Amino acid sequence: MTAALLPPQARRMAITGNHAALAAFAQTLADTARAETLHRFEMGIGAEDKGGADGFDPVTDADREAERAMRAAIEAAFPDHGIAGEEFPERPANGPFVWSLDPVDGTRSFTCGLPNWVTLIALLEEGRPILGLIDVPCLGERYWGGAGEGGFVRFGREAPLRASDRTRLDEARLSTTDPYLFPGAERDAFERVRSRVRTSRYGHDGYAYARLAAGTIDLVIESQLKPYDYNALIPVVRASGGMIGNWTGGDDFSHGRVIAAATPALFDQAVALMRDAV
Amino acid sequence: MTAALLPPQARRMAITGNHAALAAFAQTLADTARAETLHRFEMGIGAEDKGGADGFDPVTDADREAERAMRAAIEAAFPDHGIAGEEFPERPANGPFVWSLDPVDGTRSFTCGLPNWVTLIALLEEGRPILGLIDVPCLGERYWGGAGEGGFVRFGREAPLRASDRTRLDEARLSTTDPYLFPGAERDAFERVRSRVRTSRYGHDGYAYARLAAGTIDLVIESQLKPYDYNALIPVVRASGGMIGNWTGGDDFSHGRVIAAATPALFDQAVALMRDAV
Repeated sequence: MTAALLPPQARRMAITGNHAALAAFAQTLADTARAETLHRFEMGIGAEDKGGADGFDPVTDADREAERAMRAAIEAAFPDHGIAGEEFPERPANGPFVWSLDPVDGTRSFTCGLPNWVTLIALLEEGRPILGLIDVPCLGERYWGGAGEGGFVRFGREAPLRASDRTRLDEARLSTTDPYLFPGAERDAFERVRSRVRTSRYGHDGYAYARLAAGTIDLVIESQLKPYDYNALIPVVRASGGMIGNWTGGDDFSHGRVIAAATPALFDQAVALMRDAV
Repeated sequence: MTAALLPPQARRMAITGNHAALAAFAQTLADTARAETLHRFEMGIGAEDKGGADGFDPVTDADREAERAMRAAIEAAFPDHGIAGEEFPERPANGPFVWSLDPVDGTRSFTCGLPNWVTLIALLEEGRPILGLIDVPCLGERYWGGAGEGGFVRFGREAPLRASDRTRLDEARLSTTDPYLFPGAERDAFERVRSRVRTSRYGHDGYAYARLAAGTIDLVIESQLKPYDYNALIPVVRASGGMIGNWTGGDDFSHGRVIAAATPALFDQAVALMRDAV
């Protein structure tokens, strides 16, 4: 974490236990990425189109250079660790640990000059995400979690992660990145939840999960997420006391359908409304 | 404008001409509002529900206290000016000038802990908005325009407003706050545009128009806006070289349907696709 962000009491919130050193290293990776992304965002937008004829999926210099820099740092510090990122081919692991990297989650926001894009960093052990970090360069915010512990920095102050205690759909603040991303039956399922919640907000990609873990969003529903999109979110949401699973309530995210909820009650209600769409 | 925001060359971008003093006063009003909103956002959310049974329309202490403070400043400096705000009854003018105030545009974002809410300030002369200001407290950004001149501050640097030069829908970056806010035929009309643009972003309320005026959004389409929602946007968008009008291409915003576009070509294409929905 950068000196500017780190308040004096930060060590209190550091992740302890077996993976404390790896958690600290994840913070330096986020610094490394931020040094490549933020000034490019400030200077302007250089998006390319990598989505082909059927969609818009910009990738920027920021995306590539941040992943390149994080990979170099991992290869230097942990040559046995694997790396799975969005931009480059997978580096196989020699052992249990693999880093999952998405340097710019929310590339559409980035190319529209909007501040709500994030950097996602996760560490997997034997395929399970054990550490997650969501960095928000434009806002100077950072959220991290692992082994049931987690914290965040916002407005220069650090606090523990804690999801809200809302249990009723009609009190819930729902977020999804883009309701038009849901195909057919999935859109109908989302609509069943959307029509019952108190308010809905769009456009936040990984940042929505960060705000869920900090207690101001209660429910996030998405589909078509890739592993580098969801790996970092899982330890952060779980460290906040929130729930995260797939649309049938399970732990297999490989189909890319994710529900995160502040409480088990909200999670169960969303699953009950949505599971038949799968 | 706060000292922290104002770079040395700021006077270059100041609005000149007959209304220079009023434009400078608008900047102090934005400071006044920010002093009431930002610390309340940082401390947490105290939303009430003023929407009744048919919707969620939170108003916060921030909203009320910021409007109260701006009204007091206007009444002290310009006792003949009228005031039309979101939160309190209209103060009639004794003369041509009326201030239009929306202390927190994007109250749903505010209550969800999201940074993309803005303060909107406009000065109307004989009913026409001649000065507009969009302040973004969480991001430390500010956008202002009037009499064809305008500028903005972002990342501590000041620059003139300039809309993009994109003219083709299939290159356009579209934004609207919430696609579910469009009733029936309006949603179909919006969908005609949405399905043709390059990318769509949601959830930004007045901030989307600020980014259009700064060149990173090309098209904004909304309906159901109130005068305090749109008055400030008009001089800002026009100062950037962009277009802003209603869904039939005219200047009467009283039905709350707004199209803002970076270029006349984009504006005309959106109007052609949408005008029959009205």
